[in-house]
Amino acid sequence: MEIKAFQDYYPDELSLCYGCGRLNPHGMQIKSYWDGEESVCRFQPGPYHTVLEGYVYGGLIASIIDCHGTGTGAAAMYRAENRPMDSQPPIRCVTAKLQVEYLKPTPMGQLELRGRVKELSTRKAIIAVDVLANGVVCTTGEVIAVRINDEWLQKYLQSAAAS
Amino acid sequence: MEIKAFQDYYPDELSLCYGCGRLNPHGMQIKSYWDGEESVCRFQPGPYHTVLEGYVYGGLIASIIDCHGTGTGAAAMYRAENRPMDSQPPIRCVTAKLQVEYLKPTPMGQLELRGRVKELSTRKAIIAVDVLANGVVCTTGEVIAVRINDEWLQKYLQSAAAS
Repeated sequence: MEIKAFQDYYPDELSLCYGCGRLNPHGMQIKSYWDGEESVCRFQPGPYHTVLEGYVYGGLIASIIDCHGTGTGAAAMYRAENRPMDSQPPIRCVTAKLQVEYLKPTPMGQLELRGRVKELSTRKAIIAVDVLANGVVCTTGEVIAVRINDEWLQKYLQSAAAS
Repeated sequence: MEIKAFQDYYPDELSLCYGCGRLNPHGMQIKSYWDGEESVCRFQPGPYHTVLEGYVYGGLIASIIDCHGTGTGAAAMYRAENRPMDSQPPIRCVTAKLQVEYLKPTPMGQLELRGRVKELSTRKAIIAVDVLANGVVCTTGEVIAVRINDEWLQKYLQSAAAS
């Protein structure tokens, strides 16, 4: 049985994100999974995702930290409520604050992101993310992820389904 | 006479950045200019740069803050040395730290970024960036931009020119 990623559970109307939406054909469609207490995402940058020749673009790294962070935040909220990610109502987080520290240049090649839940409440999660290349942490980040208000989300889902 | 953007002065070998490199055909090729004491960049997201329908992807916003910030940092260093941006040796900055606060959802449409130099030394610049949509600040950011070491840069330029 194939294990579904966090993002595979997002409702269709919430799957348009350029970073992680499985229905955005132009986007990066990142996939995040639990790996014990950590969340993991592996991403292969395109050959054009450069900053200098041979090194990964920092904005791309910030982007995938952001999506992996909000995905981990939502997954942690489902887990805290002890319910599966396809149960109702859906939980989706947006980013209130993103911090990224570039410790060293990131060589081109597959990246591994590892997320840890630093703080969690019903409405907010703080997720720390390490970004590794060849097993070395090149960038660290922190995402303050805030749960989208249920009422707003229901309205959005209805309006998106009707359009 | 057309006014050149900061990024138009970057040497060819330093123009591969996915965010701001004029020689990266897949990238966003953002352009930054002085506007008095502020730097300004106007950017039109693609229709696929969504987070939800009608709203701009936060990772894209972080990316253009990053590139506008490092571009403004380098331009401020040239200005502080009282020399034009096509003089030698070239100055390029990389990001040490990026912070982004998403104040409200950013509606799709042209974005305006306004940068301010908060701190400047020969090797480091701290640039504050506001991102506006329809004249309203939706996101604020701060970039700690560090000048690439001259020796490293010369080696990189020689190796890139030879390849």
